[in-house]
Amino acid sequence: MSNIMNKYKKIDTSDIEFLKSIVDEDRIHIGQENIHHDYSRDELAGIERYPDVLMHPVNAEEISKILKYANEKLIPVTTRGQGTGLVGGAVPLCGGIMISTEKMNKILEIDEENLTVTVEPGVLLMELTAFVESNDLFYPPDPGEKSASIGGNISTNAGGMRAVKYGVTRDYVRGMEFVLPDGEIMNFGGKIVKNSSGYSLKDFVVGSEGTLGVVSKLILKLLPKPKYKLSLLIPFKDLTSAIKTVPEVIKSKNIPTAIEFMQGNVILAAEEFLGKKFPDNSSDAYLLLQFDGNSKDEIEAAYEKVAEICLNCGALDVLISDTDERHDSIWSARGAFLEAIKASTTQMDECDVVVPRNRVADFIIYTNELQKEFDLRISSFGHAGDGNLHVYILRDEMDEETWNKKAACVFEKMYGKAFEMGGAVSGEHGVGFAKLPYLEEEFGEAGMKLFRGIKLAFDPNEIMNPGKIGSNFRVKLYS
Amino acid sequence: MSNIMNKYKKIDTSDIEFLKSIVDEDRIHIGQENIHHDYSRDELAGIERYPDVLMHPVNAEEISKILKYANEKLIPVTTRGQGTGLVGGAVPLCGGIMISTEKMNKILEIDEENLTVTVEPGVLLMELTAFVESNDLFYPPDPGEKSASIGGNISTNAGGMRAVKYGVTRDYVRGMEFVLPDGEIMNFGGKIVKNSSGYSLKDFVVGSEGTLGVVSKLILKLLPKPKYKLSLLIPFKDLTSAIKTVPEVIKSKNIPTAIEFMQGNVILAAEEFLGKKFPDNSSDAYLLLQFDGNSKDEIEAAYEKVAEICLNCGALDVLISDTDERHDSIWSARGAFLEAIKASTTQMDECDVVVPRNRVADFIIYTNELQKEFDLRISSFGHAGDGNLHVYILRDEMDEETWNKKAACVFEKMYGKAFEMGGAVSGEHGVGFAKLPYLEEEFGEAGMKLFRGIKLAFDPNEIMNPGKIGSNFRVKLYS
Repeated sequence: MSNIMNKYKKIDTSDIEFLKSIVDEDRIHIGQENIHHDYSRDELAGIERYPDVLMHPVNAEEISKILKYANEKLIPVTTRGQGTGLVGGAVPLCGGIMISTEKMNKILEIDEENLTVTVEPGVLLMELTAFVESNDLFYPPDPGEKSASIGGNISTNAGGMRAVKYGVTRDYVRGMEFVLPDGEIMNFGGKIVKNSSGYSLKDFVVGSEGTLGVVSKLILKLLPKPKYKLSLLIPFKDLTSAIKTVPEVIKSKNIPTAIEFMQGNVILAAEEFLGKKFPDNSSDAYLLLQFDGNSKDEIEAAYEKVAEICLNCGALDVLISDTDERHDSIWSARGAFLEAIKASTTQMDECDVVVPRNRVADFIIYTNELQKEFDLRISSFGHAGDGNLHVYILRDEMDEETWNKKAACVFEKMYGKAFEMGGAVSGEHGVGFAKLPYLEEEFGEAGMKLFRGIKLAFDPNEIMNPGKIGSNFRVKLYS
Repeated sequence: MSNIMNKYKKIDTSDIEFLKSIVDEDRIHIGQENIHHDYSRDELAGIERYPDVLMHPVNAEEISKILKYANEKLIPVTTRGQGTGLVGGAVPLCGGIMISTEKMNKILEIDEENLTVTVEPGVLLMELTAFVESNDLFYPPDPGEKSASIGGNISTNAGGMRAVKYGVTRDYVRGMEFVLPDGEIMNFGGKIVKNSSGYSLKDFVVGSEGTLGVVSKLILKLLPKPKYKLSLLIPFKDLTSAIKTVPEVIKSKNIPTAIEFMQGNVILAAEEFLGKKFPDNSSDAYLLLQFDGNSKDEIEAAYEKVAEICLNCGALDVLISDTDERHDSIWSARGAFLEAIKASTTQMDECDVVVPRNRVADFIIYTNELQKEFDLRISSFGHAGDGNLHVYILRDEMDEETWNKKAACVFEKMYGKAFEMGGAVSGEHGVGFAKLPYLEEEFGEAGMKLFRGIKLAFDPNEIMNPGKIGSNFRVKLYS
């Protein structure tokens, strides 16, 4: 590690003096003893590293000054939203400066003629959603973690439950203000609907996990808010028969807004975690479907057809939620699955693979086999409708050595299986620090060379989020 | 120009011998005298340049061999689909090898469980559309030029009429097989719905106009085919009042599939060109709207609301087309506008700017002023619903010097106005050769440096489509 760290300048008092001149004094924190523990980590267990300086800029100009200085002096810079990531993407592996976007949390404009909303990156997903819905508009991306910042969602190209019908975060980014590592403030895209003007720089930034520069403003696409929505909770005797139903639903051309799968034991964990009852917990496996639209008749026709398909495929029942209250209670339970699983064990690690949606059942069968082969608990839930699984391996009472060994083997096998099925390393959580080896496995040498070249095109001095996508080194951390 | 050309190797007999070993002899054409004139140009008037060798590979392996050799020897390679581009994107400015995708024209697979179609890049848009619709599925992007190849659509991120509701080509590219300039055959994306696995390489390629490598296979996203569609043709007393209605329609949250605007004189030209009558030609300006969906009631509710808004905004009438036949006749006339305008003059040049959709009326007013100021004819039509205008300046009987001078001034002013409005140089036709100076104006030095760095990350020897996006030189051509 010494070689890598030598690349970067260790922050000294003259750097501190300069950085203090950029922001108000309550917006800069210097030294580990003055920085809250949260800023050393995200939701990936076991990995932490403090930045040397934590800064809370409030606009692109301040960010520009910080980056320009860091770029000249070769000081690493890591951007952080709410730290809800699961792969260590916001952990400042090489120390240096952390830019928190928390104080850039203003919704700047809603434009009903262009159907856009302009926001700062620190706005929370739940704030954005509530605001646009109060204007009878709709921001479709719906990741489970509603307290994530929208900047964080952009950095991982977050997906969420409604991707089946509405697509992912990328599909809703019209434009952005972006600060390059050399301090240049750029505008990519805009309020425009179409764009064929050179390489699509905004699409390079979406999903780049803070390795190319800093997003300082976002223009997001909105839709009219659908007038009606309805959920179906459908119990099955086992997970395989539940998931095998999904391709049949897709083939029927009645496309739900969301198709989630869940195991009975995850529901029980969520009930315990939330202290609230789910509408049903008696079965081993469920599909949870959502429909939305502007015509009640159309939704009814679609869900009746889909209910029939499910019953033909072995569903035990079809429970309809057509009031807002019941609907919200089911989906908020669904939103708590991750936290519930986490609370049910001592430590966990996750695999967020995506496979073609007609291979999800095969993948789940495979994880069941692994569970037996390695004698460890694997819990999963996820987006059956878009092929994105969240598979959690749980440490429970295992000793550290066994855990590390088993976890590495199981992950190796799961990612290998996903690639064999035409899948990818991450559906929505990103690569960060933890999943880089699997990214390398997916893309090979030629792909890693491309990533590296692109990284250097934006960030020739490699100050942005070192040790992540596009780096040619791996940082080893022990917390 | 001599310096630029010195960068590349002039093809000699030993190169020819090697290239002949890659493909069957009827799939290689050597020397200008053996190459059809079409391959020296696209639909941009006045620019032509023959390749030294024209090749028709049939698979990724053949493309790989061609590129690997060209990359080692420093021979330029330009890929061409159907040559329907309007900005010189497929013109081989530095000669060398042209790869035509015409013989890679197979539809490989339709996958109803994953809602994807896998095609070779030479498949024509109209073939793709007909094929998927015969399977009761739907490929939404709908550029006017139906005889373009799908590879060409990918290269410019083609938009089309239905972008208002459905988005553009990029939104329907799930994955691709891509040959890098060094011959490496890569897979980006796949049949998967979500992907957060490193920089989104497929999104780098979409819209890159053949400057990064060669697309050899495409996996496209499909939707279920909407059950109903309906068009409204709405005459207005003038274009400004027509276009000013559009933001009111958007604000009403009844989003049509398409909102096109057209001037009376363009309709007259189309009638003459096609020898067919349009349903109405008595007004100076029209909006043409399309609605689609799976519920007749929903469409009716939406179009009645929109018709009311239009009448309140000064529409003279609302003509409804609800049979397939009338619908197709109007939209095929719309598809012929470009050819009709072209046939009405001696030479023309086009501006494909995109502006926020609430600025379209202001932009049109500005072009009317330019028309008077420079005493030349300007015809326009386009996508009022997504802010993408097609503005054509017409030479008519002007002498060449006057034409060149006036055209340059008018373009300069139009692009300047678009940028001032938060617009971009191209909505869907791309930058190619002709619009590079305006791209530079839009992005400045920092942006051009980014484009160049990205280009070199993929194509360090700069063999792919030189003189286009990412080049650091401008080729001057005189035909």
